[in-house]
Amino acid sequence: MPNHSNRGDEVPHSPIRSLLPFAKAAKAKGRHIFHLNIGQPDIETPPQALEAVRSATEKIVGYGPSEGIPSLREVVARYYQKFDANLSSEDVYVTTGASEAILFTLLTCCDQNDEVIIPEPFYANYLGFAQMGTIRIVPLTTTLEKKFQLPEPEAFEKLITPKTKAIFLCNPGNPTGQLYSRSDLEKLMALVKRHDLYLIVDEVYREFCYGKEFTSVLSFEGMEEHVIVIDSISKVFSSCGARVGYLITKNKDIQRIVNKYAQLRLCPPYFGQQLAEVCYQFSEEYIEKAKAEYDRRRHVLYEGLRSIEGVNCYLPDAAFYNMVELPVADAAHFCKWLLTDFELDGNTVMLAPADGFYFHKELGKRQVRVAYILNENDLREALNCLREALRQYLLIFGKVEDGILQQSETFSK
Amino acid sequence: MPNHSNRGDEVPHSPIRSLLPFAKAAKAKGRHIFHLNIGQPDIETPPQALEAVRSATEKIVGYGPSEGIPSLREVVARYYQKFDANLSSEDVYVTTGASEAILFTLLTCCDQNDEVIIPEPFYANYLGFAQMGTIRIVPLTTTLEKKFQLPEPEAFEKLITPKTKAIFLCNPGNPTGQLYSRSDLEKLMALVKRHDLYLIVDEVYREFCYGKEFTSVLSFEGMEEHVIVIDSISKVFSSCGARVGYLITKNKDIQRIVNKYAQLRLCPPYFGQQLAEVCYQFSEEYIEKAKAEYDRRRHVLYEGLRSIEGVNCYLPDAAFYNMVELPVADAAHFCKWLLTDFELDGNTVMLAPADGFYFHKELGKRQVRVAYILNENDLREALNCLREALRQYLLIFGKVEDGILQQSETFSK
Repeated sequence: MPNHSNRGDEVPHSPIRSLLPFAKAAKAKGRHIFHLNIGQPDIETPPQALEAVRSATEKIVGYGPSEGIPSLREVVARYYQKFDANLSSEDVYVTTGASEAILFTLLTCCDQNDEVIIPEPFYANYLGFAQMGTIRIVPLTTTLEKKFQLPEPEAFEKLITPKTKAIFLCNPGNPTGQLYSRSDLEKLMALVKRHDLYLIVDEVYREFCYGKEFTSVLSFEGMEEHVIVIDSISKVFSSCGARVGYLITKNKDIQRIVNKYAQLRLCPPYFGQQLAEVCYQFSEEYIEKAKAEYDRRRHVLYEGLRSIEGVNCYLPDAAFYNMVELPVADAAHFCKWLLTDFELDGNTVMLAPADGFYFHKELGKRQVRVAYILNENDLREALNCLREALRQYLLIFGKVEDGILQQSETFSK
Repeated sequence: MPNHSNRGDEVPHSPIRSLLPFAKAAKAKGRHIFHLNIGQPDIETPPQALEAVRSATEKIVGYGPSEGIPSLREVVARYYQKFDANLSSEDVYVTTGASEAILFTLLTCCDQNDEVIIPEPFYANYLGFAQMGTIRIVPLTTTLEKKFQLPEPEAFEKLITPKTKAIFLCNPGNPTGQLYSRSDLEKLMALVKRHDLYLIVDEVYREFCYGKEFTSVLSFEGMEEHVIVIDSISKVFSSCGARVGYLITKNKDIQRIVNKYAQLRLCPPYFGQQLAEVCYQFSEEYIEKAKAEYDRRRHVLYEGLRSIEGVNCYLPDAAFYNMVELPVADAAHFCKWLLTDFELDGNTVMLAPADGFYFHKELGKRQVRVAYILNENDLREALNCLREALRQYLLIFGKVEDGILQQSETFSK
C-alpha cells in the first residue's frame, strides 16, 4: 500500500466533530442529545430567503462568476455601511463558507513557514487551514480569568519575527464570546502598521453583541492595505449548510491573488448565493429577533452554569459561546463519558472539549466550549443534565479543587 | 503595504477564465459571443432534481455531515455498479465540486515537493491545486498527432523518482476528448502496483463516450489500495453551479485522512446535495439523451473544423472537447483578437487557448480547446464565425504553414 502524506497525519482532528461516533452510538441506543457542542443555531433560516430558492425558475444550474454573483456582492457591500465600512462590490469575494475565505486569505498572505499570531484559544480550524499551507500559527495566550480580553500590543510585539506576516483575530470570539473594543483594536492597528503586517479578522459573529458596540476593522481609515475580513451567512442567518462566506478587503494586490484562487475552484455554490442575497433584504428585523433570543439564552446559560458548584465561567459579551472551566481533571474524558455512560431520563448533553481550541492543549484540559444555540427550555433541560452528570462523574472520578484532583474512592479511568 | 505571498504570484491564471475581461468588453459593445471556451453545457439540469430543491420543506439550512448526506452517498455507491465498481457508501466522500476532491486527494497523497506524473495536456487547474500544496507536477507529453493516447508504461516509468507518489489521469480527457482503453489502463496498473503508487483518475466525463466503452479504474480488482477517483455532477447532470463532486476510494487509510480535511471545511453545500440525489433517480434516460446530443455536436464540430483550411483536428472519442491546431503563430493572441477586433453579423467566438493546458506552454502555442457544448445551430454559426475570423486574421497576421509563419504584408502585432 502506498504511504499517505505526513501532512495528512498532522491535520488536526476537529474538536467539535471528533466525538461524533460516540454521539451516533448514543443516539442508536435511543438517547436524546442536547447539542451544546456545535455552532449550529436552531433559529430558522429567513423564510423569505428559503422561498426565493424555492421559487427560482432557472433551467440550468450553471457556473457563476468565480468572485460571486454581482448582485450579491453589491448587497453585501451595502450591508457593511451599517458598520461604517465604505466598500464597493469589488471588495467582496463570495467564498464557499468562511472556511474557504480563511484558506484563501492564509495562502495569499503567507508562504511556507511564515508566521501568523493568533490569540488562543481560537477557532480550531484556523490550525487546520494554516497546516494546509504549511504556515506556522504563533499563539498568544489569553485567559478565562481575564475573560479572554485582547492582549496589549506589547504582548503581540514580543512574538513578531521576520517571518510574521499577519495578526489573526476572531471578533466577536469563537470559542470565547469575547468582544474587542474600538480602543483595543485601535492600539493594535498602530502595531500592525508599524510592522507592516496584515490584520485578518474573522467577524462572522458580529451581529450578536449584547449591550456593547461592535467595531469592524473595515471601518478604520488608513488601514485599507492591511485589513482582510472573513465573513459568513452561516451564523447571522442560520444558514450553515448553504456554504456562503466572504473574503473582504480593499487591498487591490490581495484581490488580484484571491481572484486566482477563486478561479481555480470555479465558483461558489449557486443556491446558497441565491439564498444569501435575499437574507440581506430582511436582515434588520431578523437579526434583532435572533439577537434578542441569543441574549436571553446567554443569561439562562450563565445563571445555570454559575449555580453548578465548582464551575468557573463568565457572562460573554458576544457570539453564542462560553468557555467554561469544569471541576474535572480531563474535560475531554468527561465529554466522552457524557455520551457513552450517562443519561438523565433518556437525555444527555454534548459539549466541545476546549483543548482543541488551544495551541497549548494543556491550557484547555479542564475547559469546555458551550454553545447557547438551543431554545430556553432545551437549554434549561441541558443544564439539568449537565448538573447531574457532573455530580455523578465527580463521585466516580474525583473532583478538582484548587487545581488538585481530590480522588474519589472509586476512581478509575 | 505588506507583501503578499510568493506562492500567490505563482498560482496560474485560469486559461479558461483569463479572457473574461475581453469577453465582458465585447458584450458591452453589444456583441454576441458563442462560448466554445468553457465546459458549461447548455443542456438543462434534470428538471425533477430542480423540482426537488424547489419543493424542499426544511426550515433551517443546517450543517450536514462532513462526508456528505448519507442517502446521497448510498445512491452514488449504487450508481457505480454500472461501471463494475463494488462500492459501499463509506467509500464515497461528497466534496464541493471535483475541485475540492482534487485538492483533498493531492494533499492526502503528497507532501511538499512530492511528484505526481500527469500526461499533458491536462486540465489546467490540476496545476493550481498542486501548487496550493507545493506539489510538483511531472508532465508526460502526449500529442495531437497520436490523438493524445495514453503513453506506454515505460514512458511513465522513466519519470518515476523516489519522490513520485502518484500517477494522475483524466479519463475521458479534458481538454483532449481522448478515452483510455481497458487494456491501456491494465498495463498501467501493473506499473502502479510495482512502484506502489497511487493512481488518481478524474472520471467526471465518464458518461460521454461515443461508440467505445468506458473503463473505470474502480472496476479493477486488487487495486483498491491504489485507486482514487474524482467525480462530479457538474458535467453529467449539467449542474456546474451546484458544486457537488466526489472523492471515491476503497483505501481506508486515505479515507481516514480525507475525513479530517472534510471536517475542516465542515460540510459540502446542502442544496447541491439535495439536487444531486434526485439526479441519479433519472440518470439513465437523461444521460442517454445528453450523450446522443453531444455525439451529434461532436460530428458537427469535427466536420466543420475539418473543412477549414489549415486546421488540424481529430474526432474525439469522449467528453465534449476537442484540441485543435490552428494555422496561427499564437493561438492566445488569436483568441483575444476574436473578442477585441472581430465580428460577423454581430457575433464572435470564444475559445480556450491551449497553452494553459500544457506544462510546456510552447507545445500548445498553436492549439485551442474547443468545447462542443452549444446546440447544433449555434455550433454551425460559431464555426462560420471561426472560419471567417481565421480568414481575416491570417490576412492580417500571416499564416503558419509547415510550422513556418508566412507573414502577410500587413503583419503587425
